[in-house]
Amino acid sequence: MTENKIRNLLEQVRAGKLHVDDAVRELKHLPYEDLGYAKIDHHRALRQGMPEVILGRGKRPEQVVGVVKKMARVSPNILITRGDQPLYRKVRQAVRAAQFHPLSGAIAIHRDKTIYGRGKILVVTAGTSDIPVAEEALVTAHIMGNEAETLYDVGVAGIHRLMGNRQVLATARVIIVVAGMEGALPSVVAGMVAVPVIAVPTSIGYGSSFQGLAALLGMLNSCAGNVSVVNIDNGFGAGCVASMINRL
Amino acid sequence: MTENKIRNLLEQVRAGKLHVDDAVRELKHLPYEDLGYAKIDHHRALRQGMPEVILGRGKRPEQVVGVVKKMARVSPNILITRGDQPLYRKVRQAVRAAQFHPLSGAIAIHRDKTIYGRGKILVVTAGTSDIPVAEEALVTAHIMGNEAETLYDVGVAGIHRLMGNRQVLATARVIIVVAGMEGALPSVVAGMVAVPVIAVPTSIGYGSSFQGLAALLGMLNSCAGNVSVVNIDNGFGAGCVASMINRL
Amino acid sequence: MTENKIRNLLEQVRAGKLHVDDAVRELKHLPYEDLGYAKIDHHRALRQGMPEVILGRGKRPEQVVGVVKKMARVSPNILITRGDQPLYRKVRQAVRAAQFHPLSGAIAIHRDKTIYGRGKILVVTAGTSDIPVAEEALVTAHIMGNEAETLYDVGVAGIHRLMGNRQVLATARVIIVVAGMEGALPSVVAGMVAVPVIAVPTSIGYGSSFQGLAALLGMLNSCAGNVSVVNIDNGFGAGCVASMINRL
Amino acid sequence: MTENKIRNLLEQVRAGKLHVDDAVRELKHLPYEDLGYAKIDHHRALRQGMPEVILGRGKRPEQVVGVVKKMARVSPNILITRGDQPLYRKVRQAVRAAQFHPLSGAIAIHRDKTIYGRGKILVVTAGTSDIPVAEEALVTAHIMGNEAETLYDVGVAGIHRLMGNRQVLATARVIIVVAGMEGALPSVVAGMVAVPVIAVPTSIGYGSSFQGLAALLGMLNSCAGNVSVVNIDNGFGAGCVASMINRL
Amino acid sequence: MTENKIRNLLEQVRAGKLHVDDAVRELKHLPYEDLGYAKIDHHRALRQGMPEVILGRGKRPEQVVGVVKKMARVSPNILITRGDQPLYRKVRQAVRAAQFHPLSGAIAIHRDKTIYGRGKILVVTAGTSDIPVAEEALVTAHIMGNEAETLYDVGVAGIHRLMGNRQVLATARVIIVVAGMEGALPSVVAGMVAVPVIAVPTSIGYGSSFQGLAALLGMLNSCAGNVSVVNIDNGFGAGCVASMINRL
Amino acid sequence: MTENKIRNLLEQVRAGKLHVDDAVRELKHLPYEDLGYAKIDHHRALRQGMPEVILGRGKRPEQVVGVVKKMARVSPNILITRGDQPLYRKVRQAVRAAQFHPLSGAIAIHRDKTIYGRGKILVVTAGTSDIPVAEEALVTAHIMGNEAETLYDVGVAGIHRLMGNRQVLATARVIIVVAGMEGALPSVVAGMVAVPVIAVPTSIGYGSSFQGLAALLGMLNSCAGNVSVVNIDNGFGAGCVASMINRL
Amino acid sequence: MTENKIRNLLEQVRAGKLHVDDAVRELKHLPYEDLGYAKIDHHRALRQGMPEVILGRGKRPEQVVGVVKKMARVSPNILITRGDQPLYRKVRQAVRAAQFHPLSGAIAIHRDKTIYGRGKILVVTAGTSDIPVAEEALVTAHIMGNEAETLYDVGVAGIHRLMGNRQVLATARVIIVVAGMEGALPSVVAGMVAVPVIAVPTSIGYGSSFQGLAALLGMLNSCAGNVSVVNIDNGFGAGCVASMINRL
Amino acid sequence: MTENKIRNLLEQVRAGKLHVDDAVRELKHLPYEDLGYAKIDHHRALRQGMPEVILGRGKRPEQVVGVVKKMARVSPNILITRGDQPLYRKVRQAVRAAQFHPLSGAIAIHRDKTIYGRGKILVVTAGTSDIPVAEEALVTAHIMGNEAETLYDVGVAGIHRLMGNRQVLATARVIIVVAGMEGALPSVVAGMVAVPVIAVPTSIGYGSSFQGLAALLGMLNSCAGNVSVVNIDNGFGAGCVASMINRL
Repeated sequence: MTENKIRNLLEQVRAGKLHVDDAVRELKHLPYEDLGYAKIDHHRALRQGMPEVILGRGKRPEQVVGVVKKMARVSPNILITRGDQPLYRKVRQAVRAAQFHPLSGAIAIHRDKTIYGRGKILVVTAGTSDIPVAEEALVTAHIMGNEAETLYDVGVAGIHRLMGNRQVLATARVIIVVAGMEGALPSVVAGMVAVPVIAVPTSIGYGSSFQGLAALLGMLNSCAGNVSVVNIDNGFGAGCVASMINRL
Repeated sequence: MTENKIRNLLEQVRAGKLHVDDAVRELKHLPYEDLGYAKIDHHRALRQGMPEVILGRGKRPEQVVGVVKKMARVSPNILITRGDQPLYRKVRQAVRAAQFHPLSGAIAIHRDKTIYGRGKILVVTAGTSDIPVAEEALVTAHIMGNEAETLYDVGVAGIHRLMGNRQVLATARVIIVVAGMEGALPSVVAGMVAVPVIAVPTSIGYGSSFQGLAALLGMLNSCAGNVSVVNIDNGFGAGCVASMINRL
Repeated sequence: MTENKIRNLLEQVRAGKLHVDDAVRELKHLPYEDLGYAKIDHHRALRQGMPEVILGRGKRPEQVVGVVKKMARVSPNILITRGDQPLYRKVRQAVRAAQFHPLSGAIAIHRDKTIYGRGKILVVTAGTSDIPVAEEALVTAHIMGNEAETLYDVGVAGIHRLMGNRQVLATARVIIVVAGMEGALPSVVAGMVAVPVIAVPTSIGYGSSFQGLAALLGMLNSCAGNVSVVNIDNGFGAGCVASMINRL
Repeated sequence: MTENKIRNLLEQVRAGKLHVDDAVRELKHLPYEDLGYAKIDHHRALRQGMPEVILGRGKRPEQVVGVVKKMARVSPNILITRGDQPLYRKVRQAVRAAQFHPLSGAIAIHRDKTIYGRGKILVVTAGTSDIPVAEEALVTAHIMGNEAETLYDVGVAGIHRLMGNRQVLATARVIIVVAGMEGALPSVVAGMVAVPVIAVPTSIGYGSSFQGLAALLGMLNSCAGNVSVVNIDNGFGAGCVASMINRL
Repeated sequence: MTENKIRNLLEQVRAGKLHVDDAVRELKHLPYEDLGYAKIDHHRALRQGMPEVILGRGKRPEQVVGVVKKMARVSPNILITRGDQPLYRKVRQAVRAAQFHPLSGAIAIHRDKTIYGRGKILVVTAGTSDIPVAEEALVTAHIMGNEAETLYDVGVAGIHRLMGNRQVLATARVIIVVAGMEGALPSVVAGMVAVPVIAVPTSIGYGSSFQGLAALLGMLNSCAGNVSVVNIDNGFGAGCVASMINRL
Repeated sequence: MTENKIRNLLEQVRAGKLHVDDAVRELKHLPYEDLGYAKIDHHRALRQGMPEVILGRGKRPEQVVGVVKKMARVSPNILITRGDQPLYRKVRQAVRAAQFHPLSGAIAIHRDKTIYGRGKILVVTAGTSDIPVAEEALVTAHIMGNEAETLYDVGVAGIHRLMGNRQVLATARVIIVVAGMEGALPSVVAGMVAVPVIAVPTSIGYGSSFQGLAALLGMLNSCAGNVSVVNIDNGFGAGCVASMINRL
Repeated sequence: MTENKIRNLLEQVRAGKLHVDDAVRELKHLPYEDLGYAKIDHHRALRQGMPEVILGRGKRPEQVVGVVKKMARVSPNILITRGDQPLYRKVRQAVRAAQFHPLSGAIAIHRDKTIYGRGKILVVTAGTSDIPVAEEALVTAHIMGNEAETLYDVGVAGIHRLMGNRQVLATARVIIVVAGMEGALPSVVAGMVAVPVIAVPTSIGYGSSFQGLAALLGMLNSCAGNVSVVNIDNGFGAGCVASMINRL
Repeated sequence: MTENKIRNLLEQVRAGKLHVDDAVRELKHLPYEDLGYAKIDHHRALRQGMPEVILGRGKRPEQVVGVVKKMARVSPNILITRGDQPLYRKVRQAVRAAQFHPLSGAIAIHRDKTIYGRGKILVVTAGTSDIPVAEEALVTAHIMGNEAETLYDVGVAGIHRLMGNRQVLATARVIIVVAGMEGALPSVVAGMVAVPVIAVPTSIGYGSSFQGLAALLGMLNSCAGNVSVVNIDNGFGAGCVASMINRL
């Protein structure tokens, strides 16, 4: 598309319809919308085949709502991560279709429900405490056009719970494994399947878990070959990577 | 027991009492109770000879109570770690036998008081501030069927306090040593006895204690051979390991 | 397949062809070959659709060769990572098809050259010094049945070199980005494509790169959604994940 | 000037106008104002060509106000960093010209608006969440006598937003680049310009960003040669270094 | 025994056989042999029920041999850890019974082969590269009077290898689990047994394994209750703790 | 004194005034007062020539007050560190002489004001924000019987402020230097004097100060020979070490 | 210049001298020379006003020489950092003007000796051991067209050595301060001047210097406003930043 | 002395014997000898009452010898730390009195053997492997004019070895405690004496000792009040601090 745009510009210049100075300026400014405090990149969604996404944390509510309003005119689907109830209320005043997922804080405007993914994304957790991060991944997978399913609380210290769900694992095209503490579950799951496993360390744990560092290192050092890792508590990233893979 | 179960299944198949398909399904699903957000593993208790345990932190109160209710029908003894007063009140509405240990936040349903341990578990602390972690270990040791005793505030900077209690040390079959700051006490205790010492670093300390890291490293590097270590502030883990040893 | 095996066993038991005791024993021993110091798992390759892989580092040459000999009778393709010239010579005496890749130390026995991957895997590096890790990824991608291509030395401090290769990026189904120092290249690449990006931090750098930690953290914190990360210098892991994705 | 002062003293001694003992004492006490809890160094401003600066955090409000009052009699321009609304109110009672910048917490008394800088300082951010730190840099640049401009939300995962602002970059004499997460923006910007780039890591990010450590390490390991780095979230330091350079 | 010694001293004083001054001196000097650079503590062995142990690393060969000579007159069994071939040759000149274990570098003088342990110690490794550390544990367990067995290369990424050895696990009274990389094996093993598990992280791994830190943190954060941990690569410590437990 | 006690016991035994069994017991129990949760060691004060000290943080108010009451009957001087206003009120009800130092949270019962120190202890800070830690050191120095003086806000970025106070430095027998941020002041001070310098890092600083780690490392790596270091924010420790030295 | 190039292209298209397809291709490929393993970017030198630079470490000698040969035809000045004697010999065979600086390992081809810098760059070290890093900065400053001078061994523990060189400091337009251990020198120097200070931590030091981490943190936390920092031992980066500033 | 020098200068100026310009220059240049690569500060020895000291590591042999030659003309005593046999040979050619201490690498020129210390410095080690660091402290204490004694191998895991040497501890005026691994010995020693304890962590240990970090943190977090700490393996620093204290 960028190539076409350049080609069109050049055709116009050759035809004398566009002045050289104007063409120079055009070529230098790719399209995004500038709010001063944010540059909304409507093309990113197109380029990456994804909904618009706003990282809620660290932004002020009026900034988030300002961006949402602009986006909502162009994109049917918008995802705001790490929001809260008050932010949700403000967003919902702007766009009525917004829905709130209280465990993960995700606010989703999910108007176009086309399924783009070719298979099923499975979201697995080691424990009950890992569920909020898992749900961020789940919401992300859904809004990015995937079928997704969950398998919760199958951590490695009771390995038969996982063994008893081998068939559930076997139905997935991509698996997201969410685990805190020692972060061992992705290695075990990855050894049982022949599909990509996205590992998400969580900050769940005591003392020397160091807010997820133990789980992160465990996952990076997985002895299974088909594991790649995203940031601690980054359910969104995992959902996003899994969607990208599932669309192939 | 798992072996017996397989054997029984096979006998039934041979006898024509059980269809092959059903046997396959049975063999694939080991027994646990599935609440969706949690998989209660009644067999873990049997397999490990322990009460049911719920890690309170990171779970929502209704989740904890939901799990407790299911468990309480099967298991006489249940331990919830890292709870608080409000959670305790909810648990107690479900199971009246529940008791609260406010220093450690442990909630214990201790209905079967059989003693399984062969000797005494001694819980030692370096300072007064380490007592909450020590009590989590103590409650754990009790609910897992052990006699347990305490020796508090005998840190190494006043070594005669420890020296004066040599005989107390000598009565224990397993010793749990809880210490923050430099975490030196386990090494000294371990050098004075011929029994296993479980070291628990605590997050007690200033500045470069780094929330228990200094004590943890100190204990891992103990120059005494009979010391092994659990996670920072992990009184539960220490009580659990000590119980396992004491039952041998 | 495991299910079929169980089913067969049960059918044989029902038919009286197999004694219950034998069936119990069979059910307990899944198939792998035991050399004492190693358990060769011929089924892993089948389960994961991959060649046999041996992590060369930390093993003694005679152990590696012993394992290779066993494997070579079953599997056409074997990959030994982190080897060296002397090990290669020993391996080649055992299996003449072995080839050595001196930059990465990979030793590859690549006899079955079927292509399983559906698209092209592109291996990108930030600098010239990152090439050894990139080649480990490349060799892995090839032996796992993929077409793969390289784009080297397009780091972010000369962003036009990357911009000038947009079309190369656009041809890939999966992209592996290998970078040391600040590890910024995966974020930029990921923003330019709509396919999964596997980021590999390398230990290339000075001082506070801390042997790849800086690059690793940079990649984990990527502001692009479609990036997942493998361990420092883990070209093999990246090639493996990319292959898994490319086969979908 | 210190040399002149010594010279004057010596001249007075030679002329017999100053007693040797008094001269000794004078030579030992360089000029600053002593409040006990603080030593106000009016000469620092002169020596460094800067306004008086008070680091607000960690000081008690009455201490800050006490220092401001002394300073305001000598210096037209005073900057208090990391303040808040209540502190601002107290400062404003002391000096009416004080102004509050709520995003960064900066309190500025900017009475002498002479421009000393020779060119323009450009403050760039990777994201919207980095703006508070950027504004601390901006306020600092202004009060130190510079023209300054901003370019916000041009992070590397949407590289065309930066590419589209090449001309803005080209107009600056010094560039401050503020980024959290992976901290990759300074490298890219530095590769596009031929002026000094001051990189400011921010504590914006999740999990393994470790409160800005990832961004800090990324910037220190920049593969671009014209990048130097200040502390995490240290907008003031960046503004100060940039001012120093811009005055040359 | 110490108590008896005090009692004897006091009896002698009462009987007038020992002068008060001499008794004071006796009471102050507990028995060890002083070589200047080392204080050989023959009682430690008695107190802890163990052979004499010398940590080989960091000592000069002549120091080690000097200590061995003294020890060998009193103790039948001596263990030197982290030695090498040249040291072994020197030790063997002093004590012919010395034997060298080249994988772990252990030098063992094992003359009294009494079995003190009540059950079997099982030493499990995740991979082939972990065997040297496992053998240090094994040699230690043997010289401390235990029956011990090994189960090597049953890491979690091929979980069926472990599952196929459930019965081997079931025969042990204490289990030592040695693992590098993500260090996940102890959690899985511990969930399958009801005996104490001693976890030994190894420095085997790449990049972000950080010489065993990843495995160490993983093991400390084990979600299984019956796991305690010793230092990285500390096979000796694990063997020692396991022996202490096995003698109970 | 311990020696005398032993000697007395032995004399009594010889004289037949004390039974051997009783003497054994006496010899085993050195004198401290046991409150269960705390063992008050009245001899430590005597042994170390210091007041009784209670680390306030991590203890519950009733525990602190319980210990204070016991101590106050034996010791004239008691220091409670890291207290607060509510604790002070409770302590003051128990002992009216108690005084509160709100900056540092120290609660001091200072009834015996004998001066034991031979010279003056000087407490120096780099900045105003370091004063709370400095005052903990100051209170400690006073209650341990020293004359002490302060020199605040003479950090290295305005080196003439320090140079102008060379004579103040010259009057001290021991110098405590308290600094956060880069922690450079102790090196400079130590190079200007010939007395011991005790360095106290503080947790004052931004971002990569990592709560005092930067200052701590700076001080440990001081290029001056006469610097030793205590823990971050440990004003008490510095005052204590300085007192010990000043009494020599 | 890039703008001019685009303008020329467009003019040619308008004039019919260039076909649209050719213009598209031209616009997509910015100029660099592609050796496969390296992309030589002759424009970077022009864009940034600097010589060509090759980071020697991590590249193979034939790669370095290959790149040098290509570069030497276009650029008069080339700098290879972190080389050694054997590499130098190979480079010198390719380009006779090459010179070797053995302390820092820099290999410089310095044929165009034009001075571009407006003032003097001063390179200061804390100790003698910091000189190799200082010389890398010095060689860089020279080849980038600056006058540069050195002031060595003026560390803070003998502050009068620095005080005695105030006038040397006063002559510089930019100051590079190189220091290991506690890294305190940049703060002191920066407080004495009104020009930008570039701080270079070195890996010189013992134990807890952690290969320069202590110095790096110290410099990042400098209490002086006019300090910015480059990577540990990165003399090249410091020389490069200083040159950029000095050309303004 | 500096004061006297200023006073003399001023008297000469008043008397007309010294021209003002000359006095200015004199006042600006305090006395040190400048070798270019090193500034020898003969006054430091006087100011701090110590011998000249050269940190051997990181300096080239000819630099060390050059400095030694200059120093040896002014100072009777010179200490070179971290040298080796070849350096020693070169130093001895320059100054025949030089002596080599091979364990620590110290080279001492000890010609003036006056005793300045008032009491005895005791150097204690936890183990045999800590002796090299202890000897650096010992050599330092001797050359700085102290009587010093050693007590080696009294680590905490055999606490009776320490208990049996209480009287040795009681004879010291300052105690240096050298320990690796968990670094617990200083706390125990400090609790037994009423004199200052200087703790020296050593890099002796395995795995998670992290080259002395565990011992360093342990010592910084000592629960004893009279402990201060120097850098890892910094025997020189400990000897220097102890000397400073012992001279008081």
